[in-house]
Amino acid sequence: MIGKVYLVGAGPGDPDLITVKGLRLIQQADVILYDRLIPHALLHEAQPYAELIDVGKAPKKQRLSQNIINQLMIEKAQKGLQVVRLKGGDPFVFGRGGEEALACSEAGIPFEVVPGITSAIAVPAYAGIPVTHRHVSTALTVITGHEDPDGPESTINYEAIVQTGGTLVIMMGVQTLIQTLDRLIDAGLPIDTPAATIEWGTTSEQRVVEGTVDRLPTLIAAANIQPPATTVIGEVVNLRSQGVEWFDPIYAELYGNNQNAEIKLIA
Amino acid sequence: MIGKVYLVGAGPGDPDLITVKGLRLIQQADVILYDRLIPHALLHEAQPYAELIDVGKAPKKQRLSQNIINQLMIEKAQKGLQVVRLKGGDPFVFGRGGEEALACSEAGIPFEVVPGITSAIAVPAYAGIPVTHRHVSTALTVITGHEDPDGPESTINYEAIVQTGGTLVIMMGVQTLIQTLDRLIDAGLPIDTPAATIEWGTTSEQRVVEGTVDRLPTLIAAANIQPPATTVIGEVVNLRSQGVEWFDPIYAELYGNNQNAEIKLIA
Repeated sequence: MIGKVYLVGAGPGDPDLITVKGLRLIQQADVILYDRLIPHALLHEAQPYAELIDVGKAPKKQRLSQNIINQLMIEKAQKGLQVVRLKGGDPFVFGRGGEEALACSEAGIPFEVVPGITSAIAVPAYAGIPVTHRHVSTALTVITGHEDPDGPESTINYEAIVQTGGTLVIMMGVQTLIQTLDRLIDAGLPIDTPAATIEWGTTSEQRVVEGTVDRLPTLIAAANIQPPATTVIGEVVNLRSQGVEWFDPIYAELYGNNQNAEIKLIA
Repeated sequence: MIGKVYLVGAGPGDPDLITVKGLRLIQQADVILYDRLIPHALLHEAQPYAELIDVGKAPKKQRLSQNIINQLMIEKAQKGLQVVRLKGGDPFVFGRGGEEALACSEAGIPFEVVPGITSAIAVPAYAGIPVTHRHVSTALTVITGHEDPDGPESTINYEAIVQTGGTLVIMMGVQTLIQTLDRLIDAGLPIDTPAATIEWGTTSEQRVVEGTVDRLPTLIAAANIQPPATTVIGEVVNLRSQGVEWFDPIYAELYGNNQNAEIKLIA
């Protein structure tokens, strides 16, 4: 009997933001191949017999190559096991989930995709920033900061992104953020555009720096913001101080994002 | 004692894609104000004593105005009740969640935001289309088709959106889709760009039409695609037939997306 691979999005950090389907699959899995940036509390939900394999990559320390991850995933499923490939955020938003799906498909392994809450939307939300808002922003663009904005491989048209006039979210890449912001300003982004960077968003470690794009690098340096971080640029950032801010990481640390109640699954 | 408002994203359609936090809040709510396009199975999870109020809007039949919804939400919380405002997809992605958050804030009502899986990403995923893919698309732009592309209020820069060269997702607005596609082609979108429209995505009613942007209106008319529908435009659409397609709505209809097992909450 052949097994199955589930490409599961673990969400942005708050373990309570996993989907009901994702949690059930973790609880039933024989093998879990997990990324570095998943809420580790989710692993405590696995069966005692489940094999937990860390395939995460620390910045600059590539641990397992994508090929080896694909191979592991396929080998385990070929043994008839239920494999959860647990990924931060959503598998298809800069998560290489498409590559893993293709690898399964080529190997004849059945697979399912279980979307996760993406940091691109939820991290701003926990910082009190709606990525869209009527009469303020009616378009959302998401890019990754992991792409070198000056590199030969850069496929991103920064001029066009600036011209859309909507909200821009830059996922990850706090190390290259200064270059990316410079590139956006060169491309015509007004230097007084509101912007915020959020470190460890949706968790009790969440920290937010907020200002304008020209001041953001200074604010990030002063606060020593480290990865993982998400940056949001656009007028919607102002909504935070206008009343949308709601999440208190200190409260979350003291009382937990979560409660201990049992919930029953949807029939 | 004052109550609290929870702005909860119900996800894209599959009831199993609600977050663990969202489901628990539904199960504990005194009042649920719900939109038309939420998975109705979620309402069966409410307490027997919970008051369920349909504040949904059918297309062209505006049922309750946003002001009345805000007022209801606030009045219920002022009575000390736990209010879930249950919204399709994610509250902050064209969901007016920001307006509801501001209304709570102005009325001095504590609130929380519980992100939901957005249709913008999950509906393409269930159609076998990853919205980003290395070497294929490294930017994602999301707009709503509800905005009239020729209207005086249109704030969307279609030329810029076309120039970004990433994936474009148009949420809702299947009625205005022909105009939106015309507008995009006028703005320079190559007519042979791969595109797909998905009706009732992530549910057992899911139907997909796939082709190129110039042929999409004919395909939509031939299949009689109706709202709710999500359109995705870009090279990533080709990944569907290259092996990423996985979801079988007929299987989901026969066996259910969901299973009956109990799950325990994360401690």
